[in-house]
Amino acid sequence: MSVIACCPGTFDPVTNGHLDIITRTASRFDRVIVGVLDNPSKNPLFSVEERLGILREVLKDLTNVEVCTFSGLLVDFAHAHKAATIIKGLRAISDFDYELQMAQMNFRLGKVETLFMATNPVYSFLSSSLVKEIARFGGDVRGLVPSGVAERLRDRYEAPQA
Amino acid sequence: MSVIACCPGTFDPVTNGHLDIITRTASRFDRVIVGVLDNPSKNPLFSVEERLGILREVLKDLTNVEVCTFSGLLVDFAHAHKAATIIKGLRAISDFDYELQMAQMNFRLGKVETLFMATNPVYSFLSSSLVKEIARFGGDVRGLVPSGVAERLRDRYEAPQA
Amino acid sequence: MSVIACCPGTFDPVTNGHLDIITRTASRFDRVIVGVLDNPSKNPLFSVEERLGILREVLKDLTNVEVCTFSGLLVDFAHAHKAATIIKGLRAISDFDYELQMAQMNFRLGKVETLFMATNPVYSFLSSSLVKEIARFGGDVRGLVPSGVAERLRDRYEAPQA
Amino acid sequence: MSVIACCPGTFDPVTNGHLDIITRTASRFDRVIVGVLDNPSKNPLFSVEERLGILREVLKDLTNVEVCTFSGLLVDFAHAHKAATIIKGLRAISDFDYELQMAQMNFRLGKVETLFMATNPVYSFLSSSLVKEIARFGGDVRGLVPSGVAERLRDRYEAPQA
Amino acid sequence: MSVIACCPGTFDPVTNGHLDIITRTASRFDRVIVGVLDNPSKNPLFSVEERLGILREVLKDLTNVEVCTFSGLLVDFAHAHKAATIIKGLRAISDFDYELQMAQMNFRLGKVETLFMATNPVYSFLSSSLVKEIARFGGDVRGLVPSGVAERLRDRYEAPQA
Amino acid sequence: MSVIACCPGTFDPVTNGHLDIITRTASRFDRVIVGVLDNPSKNPLFSVEERLGILREVLKDLTNVEVCTFSGLLVDFAHAHKAATIIKGLRAISDFDYELQMAQMNFRLGKVETLFMATNPVYSFLSSSLVKEIARFGGDVRGLVPSGVAERLRDRYEAPQA
Repeated sequence: MSVIACCPGTFDPVTNGHLDIITRTASRFDRVIVGVLDNPSKNPLFSVEERLGILREVLKDLTNVEVCTFSGLLVDFAHAHKAATIIKGLRAISDFDYELQMAQMNFRLGKVETLFMATNPVYSFLSSSLVKEIARFGGDVRGLVPSGVAERLRDRYEAPQA
Repeated sequence: MSVIACCPGTFDPVTNGHLDIITRTASRFDRVIVGVLDNPSKNPLFSVEERLGILREVLKDLTNVEVCTFSGLLVDFAHAHKAATIIKGLRAISDFDYELQMAQMNFRLGKVETLFMATNPVYSFLSSSLVKEIARFGGDVRGLVPSGVAERLRDRYEAPQA
Repeated sequence: MSVIACCPGTFDPVTNGHLDIITRTASRFDRVIVGVLDNPSKNPLFSVEERLGILREVLKDLTNVEVCTFSGLLVDFAHAHKAATIIKGLRAISDFDYELQMAQMNFRLGKVETLFMATNPVYSFLSSSLVKEIARFGGDVRGLVPSGVAERLRDRYEAPQA
Repeated sequence: MSVIACCPGTFDPVTNGHLDIITRTASRFDRVIVGVLDNPSKNPLFSVEERLGILREVLKDLTNVEVCTFSGLLVDFAHAHKAATIIKGLRAISDFDYELQMAQMNFRLGKVETLFMATNPVYSFLSSSLVKEIARFGGDVRGLVPSGVAERLRDRYEAPQA
Repeated sequence: MSVIACCPGTFDPVTNGHLDIITRTASRFDRVIVGVLDNPSKNPLFSVEERLGILREVLKDLTNVEVCTFSGLLVDFAHAHKAATIIKGLRAISDFDYELQMAQMNFRLGKVETLFMATNPVYSFLSSSLVKEIARFGGDVRGLVPSGVAERLRDRYEAPQA
Repeated sequence: MSVIACCPGTFDPVTNGHLDIITRTASRFDRVIVGVLDNPSKNPLFSVEERLGILREVLKDLTNVEVCTFSGLLVDFAHAHKAATIIKGLRAISDFDYELQMAQMNFRLGKVETLFMATNPVYSFLSSSLVKEIARFGGDVRGLVPSGVAERLRDRYEAPQA
């Protein structure tokens, strides 16, 4: 059987922790659909088009990975792409409760299975919101995000502060 | 002695998990006061009057249960109804810390005891906010909430989307 | 209705944290059955007879509390004493998972409800095993256990070390 | 690519929670190797041969599942069976820390990926040791374990008590 | 060597739990810098000037403690004051994950070490936001905050309600 | 003031995670006492003399670190060495509850303060018992423990298996 996995997220912006999860998923499954949540009400720093562009750029060497956007229920997105499995990274205990709840709900709603992957320990303290906070105050985010993202963060936060 | 217990919540909307907690409380205590928090600043989906109406409808067969609204401190509400005990459902670890903190504070403020009841495992992944998110995107919430609530959710979310 | 609650434990030995839970239970329920687990295989420091004696002594002023021993399943003990409710103290997150599991199992096995009570914060770091470890090395356990227990611990640990 | 997953455990005895995880794994992966840990030092209730026999019996309808025994490091077992992925059920927070640690170590030791699957909520309170404790005291374990296991538990615990 | 520690926070308002942490830090380190986060976007109840004034008043007897304000990255503030160590109180599990993440990030960003101090159990249920909620509804916050803070809270919340 | 910190542990054997905590402590405090728990009843793999020898060897370049053995209560050991502060590494949530309990008890017993240090994320999955389990089955522990420890583990486990 051809096993398709879905890696959903907001990716505002993508971090090296996200890339690690997606890369490991791509090495274990036949095909990976990266789902970028379109959530204009949450006022993201990067538009959904920018986030799609960044992900397609940094993932271009993984030939079995496709990047799409979605809104609405994750189970509907997974079904539309024939992905019976969702892959989520678990960093810490605070992720666990919410993700377990979502996994059990998504299984009930649409028989979609969620599999959790342990975050690489070197990225265990990393999150998109923390990266944005550091970048906003001029801190160094190299090594935490792809280099193109580090540049975009610098551009984004320099303009308003200038 | 007549033991009166209080089941507080926002109930926006009531779920089958809430009903399970209230029903089990009613079978163990002489009288149960369900307290619906009036919190207009939190922008609830259902008005406090609607929430009172729904709860009174679905609980009408439990003759030792009364449904009231409250604002302000829970200890003041409990005292006003001569309830020396608050019953709260615990689903998961993320509930635990906050609820333990509130329980210890409420005991200090007004000698009101909080007793925690384990959520029925089949409802462990269920919350009002998750139910609203599913309903908002057209997902099936039957079995998660009373049937009248499922209808109201459909009505509420269809109108703005139509 | 007459509401009977059961407070089970090993009580090897009883601590001030246990007494706080039992006292608060006795003030909220009509009758309280303290159940002392008879577990010879666990090699307790105090025999079940000693533990019964200590508890009856320190609880003698609470007229609605009865102290009994039990072995086997807790649900069978609760049924035998017509206690439909078990009260357990929750100190910390590490108690939570195991106790939630036991509560859900006991409800399934015998329709016995478990209600959790937040430990008084001043006793949150207290456990029978920690008390024994401190006493074993000559540390001061006054204020952590009833004074009679402090004396017995001193006697118990002095003899073998002398 | 043919994706082989490994479901390791002690299975002393197998519960309906284990079967749920194995069945869901078998529906998502090409082939599943169930690994029964041979741990005589832990004094299991059922010998490794009995545990193998029980699992082969209850899993006989899942044609892509194979049951084997192992001792030593899990990564060596996974490599020997060309399984690049380990599947583990996560019930609760107390599982999480230990399993995350093992997953990160196994990835480091042998590039074996661990994927966690949320336990079906109806089995969230279930464990082999709890099942044995209930059976030992004559409690009813039907619905918690396959019927053949319930019978074996009855036989095992009746003889010594008779 | 002269060991300088930094105690950062929002202190909106300072509680007796914060004071306990700062006092214990001052007794262990040569010099303590209390850093008051200037965060106008979070809409604090007390202005940063009021918070500085309150802290300087209640800490005036601790001669090795200095109170300053900061914005931006905590590591930059620590460096500016030659503090190689940050001290944070840990109350509960829900603090732990976030604080561990911040500690690991701050070590990476600026080689600043974070040391965590266990909250005094009697203040384990205490937080600035809970204090404000109690005060807002006329509850008694004496014993939870310094007496000057209790007065200011009363003044602040009486005016709008009058 | 001269600030003395104590780093207690069993160190059976010392791991690179322990060394990281001790090294960071030595860079922040005037003097560090490493306390090796003498616990013959726990049947350690390495004798207390071997553990002392290994630690003294691997820490010989840290001139402000002293390695001692202790038995009995940690507060008595800390007092004997005039260490008012205990430093403990926190890896994960499962460490937290127990360590918080011990910290609060040690403060009560002897006014000894415990400060927790976040484990370096790259060692977050590392423990002495896991290292022993890997070595016992011939797995590669290089990079997890000092090279001398890796050799000793190989010697220890090869002899009995040969």
